[in-house]
Amino acid sequence: MARVWIVGSVALDTIEGPAGRAEKVLGGSATYASCAAGLFARAGIIAAVGDDFPAGALAVLGERGADLSGLKRLPGKTFTWAGRYAPEFRTRETTHLDLGVFGSFRPVLPGPLPAGDILFLGNIDHDIQLGVLDQAGKDAFVAADTIDHWIRSKRDALVTGLARTKLFFLNDEEARLLTGEENLARAGEAIRRMGPDSVVVKKGEHGSLLFTGSGICAMPALPLRGVVDPTGAGDSFAGAMLGSMAGQGSTGPDAMRLGMARGTVVASFTVEAFGVERLRKLSPVDVEARLARFRELVRF
Amino acid sequence: MARVWIVGSVALDTIEGPAGRAEKVLGGSATYASCAAGLFARAGIIAAVGDDFPAGALAVLGERGADLSGLKRLPGKTFTWAGRYAPEFRTRETTHLDLGVFGSFRPVLPGPLPAGDILFLGNIDHDIQLGVLDQAGKDAFVAADTIDHWIRSKRDALVTGLARTKLFFLNDEEARLLTGEENLARAGEAIRRMGPDSVVVKKGEHGSLLFTGSGICAMPALPLRGVVDPTGAGDSFAGAMLGSMAGQGSTGPDAMRLGMARGTVVASFTVEAFGVERLRKLSPVDVEARLARFRELVRF
Repeated sequence: MARVWIVGSVALDTIEGPAGRAEKVLGGSATYASCAAGLFARAGIIAAVGDDFPAGALAVLGERGADLSGLKRLPGKTFTWAGRYAPEFRTRETTHLDLGVFGSFRPVLPGPLPAGDILFLGNIDHDIQLGVLDQAGKDAFVAADTIDHWIRSKRDALVTGLARTKLFFLNDEEARLLTGEENLARAGEAIRRMGPDSVVVKKGEHGSLLFTGSGICAMPALPLRGVVDPTGAGDSFAGAMLGSMAGQGSTGPDAMRLGMARGTVVASFTVEAFGVERLRKLSPVDVEARLARFRELVRF
Repeated sequence: MARVWIVGSVALDTIEGPAGRAEKVLGGSATYASCAAGLFARAGIIAAVGDDFPAGALAVLGERGADLSGLKRLPGKTFTWAGRYAPEFRTRETTHLDLGVFGSFRPVLPGPLPAGDILFLGNIDHDIQLGVLDQAGKDAFVAADTIDHWIRSKRDALVTGLARTKLFFLNDEEARLLTGEENLARAGEAIRRMGPDSVVVKKGEHGSLLFTGSGICAMPALPLRGVVDPTGAGDSFAGAMLGSMAGQGSTGPDAMRLGMARGTVVASFTVEAFGVERLRKLSPVDVEARLARFRELVRF
C-alpha cells in the first residue's frame, strides 16, 4: 500500500485555553498529520527531536505502525511551543517558541519515493521544503502546507515550491495573503495558476473548499458543541485526507473529495481533547461512523 | 397548492457598492421573498406602498402570479432606503431610511390561513409580527425572520412571537446576540428551546445551518466569483426555502433540507445583479440546473 511521508515538526506543546491547560504534550505538525494519516495508510515521519524527548511520546508516534526511521534523535532540546487561546478560541497567541534541534535540522528522505507514495511537507520554512523536493524524485505526489509567517518571509521559496506541488493546503486568510485576492473562489483559482493541480482552502468552523481541474468541492465543518483544543486541527485534516488517498491508492478528484470528508471528520475528533489524546483512541470504525453522520448532516 | 403569505416591506432602494450604483430599484423583504417563493408556489404579499409607487414596480411584483390583494396603496410616500457597501461587501452602512406609509401600516391577513399555507413574517417590528400572528389562526405554518435592531429593541415581543413560530431565520451574529452563546451549535439549540421547532442560521458566504427536532443540516454556500449586490440575499433564501416547502406540500425536515438547498441556489442568483433583476429572469429550470451544480459541489 502507498505510504504518506510526512516532513514537519515533532514538538512538546504547552497549551492554555478556555478548557484548561496541558503541559508539554506531544504536538507538532508531523505528529498530528501522521497520527491522522495512520488511520488509513502507513505513515513515515521525517523530523528531529532532542535527547530529552520522552520515550512515552516516541511510543505514541509509533502506535499506528508509523515508520520512524526518519525521526532523528539529536543532542540538544526538542522543539517546544506554548500558546494561549482567547475565549471562544477566537485568536491564539504564541507565548513561547524554542526550535531546539529542529532549528538546524535538514530533513533527509529515505530515497526517491516510489510512484503512488505521497509526500507531505508540513508548515516548515519553504527553503527547507525545497531541499526535500529535490530529494523526492518525480514520481511522488507532493502535498504541502504553509502558514502566514512563511508567506510573508519566504515568498520566493514558497512560489518556487508551488510549481512542483500537486496539492496545496492553506487557510482562508493565508489564501488572501498569498494572492491579494479577497474573494476565495478567485483566490483558489489564482493559487492553482501558481502550480498546484489542486488547492484546499481550510476555513475552520466554516468548512473547506477544494479547487481541482475538474471543479470545486465545498464542505461544511461538523458543528461542534464543545472544543477543548483546536491545536493540530489543520494538520490532522491534511494527514487524514492524504492518508485516505494513499489508502485508496488514488490521487484523483473523487479520492480527494472523500479524503476531504474524512479530514473534516478526523479534525472534529482532534479538537475534542488536548494534543493527540483523542486521535490516539480513534479507530477506523469511529471515523466511518462519524463520516456517516457527516453524510447525514449534508444530505438534501 | 399551498401558498406562502409574506408580510414584510416593499421599498425603493438606492444601493451603492463596489459594482456600482442603482437608484430607487424595487426592494424590501417582502419583494425579495415573494419573487423567490414564486418560483415554486403561489405567493401573497401583505405590505403597503405609497401613491408614488411606480406602476412598473407593481407589475414586477405580480410577474409570478403573486396575490397582491394584501398590498395596500396608501396616500403618502413609499418606504425608501439607501445603503452603501464597503469594498468586498465586508460591511453595509444605511445612508438613508424613510419608512413612509409603511411606518404606520398594520398588516391584515385575508383571514385565518388554511392548513398547509405558510406565513412568513419578514424582518419587521416584532410587535407588528405579533399582531399578524393573532390573525393567522392555528393551522398556518409560521416562519419568521429578524434583524439585530429588533433583537436589541423589541426583545420581549420577539420572545413572545418565537413561542408561536415553527421556523425561525436569523444570521450567525443575530443568533449570538439573541442567545449570548458564541458557539453556533449551542446557539441554534438554545433558540429551539425558545419555541421554534426549526431554526435556520444563515452564515452568508459560509452557508447555513438548519436545526430541527431530527438533527442538524449544514450546507456551504456556492462559491461566487463576482457579487454585484448582496441586498435581499437572506430574504430570497427564506422565500425560496418556504416556496419550495409549499410547492412540495410538506413542512417536514426533508422538505426543509431541499428547501434550504434551493434557498442557497436562489440567493446565489439574487446577488448577481442589483435588486431583483436576476431573480426576475430566473426560471425553475435555471434553479434546478444550478441545484444540480450544487449537488456536485457538495458530493463526496
